[in-house]
Amino acid sequence: MTTLTISRRQRGTPYIPRIEELGVSAYSIVNRMILPKGFRKTVEEDYWHLREHVQLWDVSTQRQIEIRGKDAAELTQLMTPRDLRQAKVGMGFYAPLIDGNAGMINDPIIQKLAEDRFWLSIADSDVELWAKGLAQGYGLDVDIFEADVWPMAVQGPKSDDLMAEVFGDAVRDIRFFRFKVLEFHGHPLLIARSGYSKQGGFEIYLDDWELGLPLWDALWEAGQAFNVSPGCPNLIERVEGGLLSLGNEMTRENNPLECGMERYCTLDGSLDFIGKDALLAIHEAGPKQMVRGVLFGGGKCPAASQPWPVKLNGQHVGQVTTCIWSPRFEQNVSLGMIKRGYWEAGTEVTVHSQDGEIRPGKIVSLPFPE
Amino acid sequence: MTTLTISRRQRGTPYIPRIEELGVSAYSIVNRMILPKGFRKTVEEDYWHLREHVQLWDVSTQRQIEIRGKDAAELTQLMTPRDLRQAKVGMGFYAPLIDGNAGMINDPIIQKLAEDRFWLSIADSDVELWAKGLAQGYGLDVDIFEADVWPMAVQGPKSDDLMAEVFGDAVRDIRFFRFKVLEFHGHPLLIARSGYSKQGGFEIYLDDWELGLPLWDALWEAGQAFNVSPGCPNLIERVEGGLLSLGNEMTRENNPLECGMERYCTLDGSLDFIGKDALLAIHEAGPKQMVRGVLFGGGKCPAASQPWPVKLNGQHVGQVTTCIWSPRFEQNVSLGMIKRGYWEAGTEVTVHSQDGEIRPGKIVSLPFPE
Repeated sequence: MTTLTISRRQRGTPYIPRIEELGVSAYSIVNRMILPKGFRKTVEEDYWHLREHVQLWDVSTQRQIEIRGKDAAELTQLMTPRDLRQAKVGMGFYAPLIDGNAGMINDPIIQKLAEDRFWLSIADSDVELWAKGLAQGYGLDVDIFEADVWPMAVQGPKSDDLMAEVFGDAVRDIRFFRFKVLEFHGHPLLIARSGYSKQGGFEIYLDDWELGLPLWDALWEAGQAFNVSPGCPNLIERVEGGLLSLGNEMTRENNPLECGMERYCTLDGSLDFIGKDALLAIHEAGPKQMVRGVLFGGGKCPAASQPWPVKLNGQHVGQVTTCIWSPRFEQNVSLGMIKRGYWEAGTEVTVHSQDGEIRPGKIVSLPFPE
Repeated sequence: MTTLTISRRQRGTPYIPRIEELGVSAYSIVNRMILPKGFRKTVEEDYWHLREHVQLWDVSTQRQIEIRGKDAAELTQLMTPRDLRQAKVGMGFYAPLIDGNAGMINDPIIQKLAEDRFWLSIADSDVELWAKGLAQGYGLDVDIFEADVWPMAVQGPKSDDLMAEVFGDAVRDIRFFRFKVLEFHGHPLLIARSGYSKQGGFEIYLDDWELGLPLWDALWEAGQAFNVSPGCPNLIERVEGGLLSLGNEMTRENNPLECGMERYCTLDGSLDFIGKDALLAIHEAGPKQMVRGVLFGGGKCPAASQPWPVKLNGQHVGQVTTCIWSPRFEQNVSLGMIKRGYWEAGTEVTVHSQDGEIRPGKIVSLPFPE
């Protein structure tokens, strides 16, 4: 951890006054916008709280890249191997976006707002520029822009009860990865059952800056009955849940098959998308590595700012990229890429952490067991 | 200022061990890589030092987007209104990159490495994705990637003397915005006379991570005779010099004409580039606003994390986006956009800073006077 300087370039969010009042302890930068990364509790206290109660997360950094116009469906489909041909308005799709070499560009949730209008809720890369470049080159009739939307996540097992207090029981009927438009202060808000945890919950797509504090305050006030807490994506819970992070577990060097996204890829040749030939060739040959968990000991590990080698009998068999102590396993949990031939669960390996330690561990299939 | 969390996603640089030994006090994130933003001296002490001596800056965040292949020159020219038709190998070109609406995408230095190979030394946006999207859509025969290059800047009036100690007198002959390839430890390095200050100096395009510390150490050791200091782009010097920052003074909402880049734009219709029609229409109508300095009082201002309104007789006539106390003017200096009809130097205005103060000021043409 170190100090971050702030300017207009590191964009703020509508929730910042409350975030600061509640004692935000650190930020990260995602998509050139600040992301709160901790409050007064430790990451372990937050982990237990998230698994039992409910939290409000400022995830405004999940920017919405809007693609609209006559060719919006065509362009959106070109950008992903996930089949959107049967997509209906009100559905969301977790989808790898790939380049011509099948390299990962992003892994957004694509939400279909209308037949000719999509939001791509992105991880940390400029999907807007990729989409604009494609549209310009292919001569497609679309408008592409970053919409003025600042998502707030409500996460944890008590999310339904809390959300129902503010939005009514209609939220309970929203199915996983579907969304509804519900009113708040007379303003329609897109609300999806989704979020960057495995504890259940919703994401509220706030599109009116002025409503940010009223929305936070309404959820906060109703949340007092449910032991609500400010929060953020929890590193322990994310790793145990096997949720990947673009820029950490996967980069442009990785393809969606090795990222465990085969079920989101159309591999029978029936669908046209950028990178199809490359992806089909990788599928034919079989991926050379696969995302896996590694559970390892040696005491609490430091944070990983670079990949750590994973070895078997001294031979390099992979790397882990996010590592943290799990109070539930009383060992370190991690995510990374393990080479073919070595990725079977239970394989015993060593993890070479950046503090110079050699730590005994074993391969775990994802998610980590409950 | 607040705390920044670190992961693989916030990429490090080869110089970090020395940066940390020398007491880095803050970082920023640019292009998903850390940028040192301060050391033990105050920004004012650094300002005076930069104007008198020489500094080493880790500007690895100035990523190099490499475009190479048969159609590299065609794609690079398509991306900018700056005329590259007469460009020769060894030349660098400060160039606006614009979209189809003439909105600013980036303002790199484009360096011509070979007839079919360019580096775009970028500010904070994913030019790689824009270029890749264009190449994919237009079906151009190019390879586009972020090259493994970590630039170090040597800035300040004693730069020539210091650089000559390490690279020989050949560096003295490098002309402004030209580059030469010189050897260090037997390894060829591209060295340009350029940098994000007005105090003169060089940028060394290190393309071998392992040479990072030897390069730093060689410059540091030779620099002892010249009162060398670790440094970074200095906010006071940058504002006074009229050097714009993408994401601060200019965004996708701005066009290069209002950013004061008319001299880098071909406006006679003889050159084809993306956004040509939009740019020519803006030129025909005349820009609606123009980048300007504003010198204002009211005591030391806070840092600006959002645009501050500039008013004349209570009427909104523009905004400033970067503001800082200047020890030389004993007033605050700032950069921003001022509307047509109000941008003449000397116009008296008020600046409405985010601490609620109303500060008297006047418009200044750029750069601020020496």
